[in-house]
Amino acid sequence: MNEEPLTAIKWDEYHLLPAIVQDAASKEVLTLAYMNAESLRLTIETGETWFWSRSRQKLWHKGATSGNTQEVIALHLDCDGDALVVLVKPAGPACHTGARSCFYRRWNAGTGHWEPIPGVATAEQLQEESV
Amino acid sequence: MNEEPLTAIKWDEYHLLPAIVQDAASKEVLTLAYMNAESLRLTIETGETWFWSRSRQKLWHKGATSGNTQEVIALHLDCDGDALVVLVKPAGPACHTGARSCFYRRWNAGTGHWEPIPGVATAEQLQEESV
Repeated sequence: MNEEPLTAIKWDEYHLLPAIVQDAASKEVLTLAYMNAESLRLTIETGETWFWSRSRQKLWHKGATSGNTQEVIALHLDCDGDALVVLVKPAGPACHTGARSCFYRRWNAGTGHWEPIPGVATAEQLQEESV
Repeated sequence: MNEEPLTAIKWDEYHLLPAIVQDAASKEVLTLAYMNAESLRLTIETGETWFWSRSRQKLWHKGATSGNTQEVIALHLDCDGDALVVLVKPAGPACHTGARSCFYRRWNAGTGHWEPIPGVATAEQLQEESV
């Protein structure tokens, strides 16, 4: 692989790039994760998503443990070269909680609460108190 | 406004929150921008998007200069409380370049280049060499 996909990137001060993972079919935003150069290279070479886990400080092949891999359909880079959209075909829920998307809560101005979203949150999350 | 929308947020080390701006109708991802507490409060109170410009280090009401404001349709918070999706109805192009979305380039594995996306990039961007 040539180096161009990497040299076009404006990495942040931690040498990371925010990657917005979006379902290529439904267009639902699934996760915001972070890539370093190695994870972007692996994502392009393997056709599945790889990230850099900031909490665990290690490379992370999405779905390696859970089986919920994400097949990469397309990569879109922004005007500044400092953010990426990764269009994927997911094999299962994106969120470690089991929700289809990590973005399973919505702001309810009426109640003044973040509340779980039906059809996105898990049954357990829907039963819990809004946070 | 009560403080709950703000206290549920896990701000980063710069007291910012990455905000993924998505077209509520087409589901296209338009921009990745950043909010501080004040811009999130203004976004909720005014129903239009406000951000924190990291390059200019100031509050930024999207569209105040260009007219391309973004009406807020919904706010979705992620599992960790450290990323937001802002669903909007845009009054015009999201990108300062005039492209409909800031994510107007896609990776072409065949050519080994990032190339402008027809229907998203401007006519000028489509005529330019791929970068």
